[in-house]
Amino acid sequence: MRILIVGGTGTLGQAVHKALVQRHTIIVAGHNKGEIQVDITHPESIAKMYREVGKVDAVIATTGRVHFAPLTEMTAKHFAIGLDDKLMGQVNLVLLGLQAVNDAGSFTLTSGILSHDPIRFGTSAAMVNGAIESFVKSAAIELPRGIRINAVSPTVLVESLSKYAEYFPGFFPVSAEKAALAFCKSVEGAQTGQVYPAV
Amino acid sequence: MRILIVGGTGTLGQAVHKALVQRHTIIVAGHNKGEIQVDITHPESIAKMYREVGKVDAVIATTGRVHFAPLTEMTAKHFAIGLDDKLMGQVNLVLLGLQAVNDAGSFTLTSGILSHDPIRFGTSAAMVNGAIESFVKSAAIELPRGIRINAVSPTVLVESLSKYAEYFPGFFPVSAEKAALAFCKSVEGAQTGQVYPAV
Repeated sequence: MRILIVGGTGTLGQAVHKALVQRHTIIVAGHNKGEIQVDITHPESIAKMYREVGKVDAVIATTGRVHFAPLTEMTAKHFAIGLDDKLMGQVNLVLLGLQAVNDAGSFTLTSGILSHDPIRFGTSAAMVNGAIESFVKSAAIELPRGIRINAVSPTVLVESLSKYAEYFPGFFPVSAEKAALAFCKSVEGAQTGQVYPAV
Repeated sequence: MRILIVGGTGTLGQAVHKALVQRHTIIVAGHNKGEIQVDITHPESIAKMYREVGKVDAVIATTGRVHFAPLTEMTAKHFAIGLDDKLMGQVNLVLLGLQAVNDAGSFTLTSGILSHDPIRFGTSAAMVNGAIESFVKSAAIELPRGIRINAVSPTVLVESLSKYAEYFPGFFPVSAEKAALAFCKSVEGAQTGQVYPAV
């Protein structure tokens, strides 16, 4: 398969790349690095990326920014960061990528454990992750040409613990290598409308 | 209790009003009708409503618009309707209403069954409902002063079937009167971070 990994230069994206590259042709898109640059908060940047990439069999998104802060200090502007980036960035990768994906191809988005297992300061992340998971379940029943869509919902990564451990008390971390398997399941498997926990 | 129902002039809101009015003081806010007018897509309109209403023990939202259309015909602009109205409208009712709600008061938002039981044309509704449900679960662990928050997730209403039946094949509808009970449970009960199905 020809697979585009948007966010393929990040910790999770690199692990997904490593898990797939021996069997497939991978194109890595990143914000600053990678073979192709894309800003997922700008639809025109996404459209430009797809024109450059051409046809693919799978699009994987391992990217998306949200704002972490105490709920009582958050305003609509803080929530807009996650809505514009992690949520609509990934949704626009689907809407604008439909023509680029071959018949029976797939999209795999990234949500996260906070949608149902919340932490302090994580309300925007939770909200965005819940939105992505329901988007995937719903989009799956309308995608044309046998195109599938799933989400992977990772817990905190082992590789991110040095930065985020204090925000995730009692959470058992997953290695990026193990989380990457869920992306393989989505891309190389046959299911659609699923949210695969990576825990 | 002193209870503000935003959207209290709609089908569901009227039923919630009827279920609570014999035991409580109700203030009804609506877009055009009701005792107080509010446009939930404008934070300044929400802030003005709260200044006029004063202190309350519970805020109920039974309002929120989303765009229904085939997924393949939708763009970011169509998704923005639901994000600005049903999602951030309700989120802003919480963020801007915190100071208006008395200790141990509550917020009750409205999501919907499509978050996990999707229909054609309903991807935006699904996404917004999933976002609301995860927002509620996460906000519940950070709200101060014993303030609670829950969501009610209704299936299609009996009263809406004449308009929407063809979009909900095989769905068993709920009466607004029965759905209103879930709002009573949220407001008069003691749980928080819950999503009550109204089916």
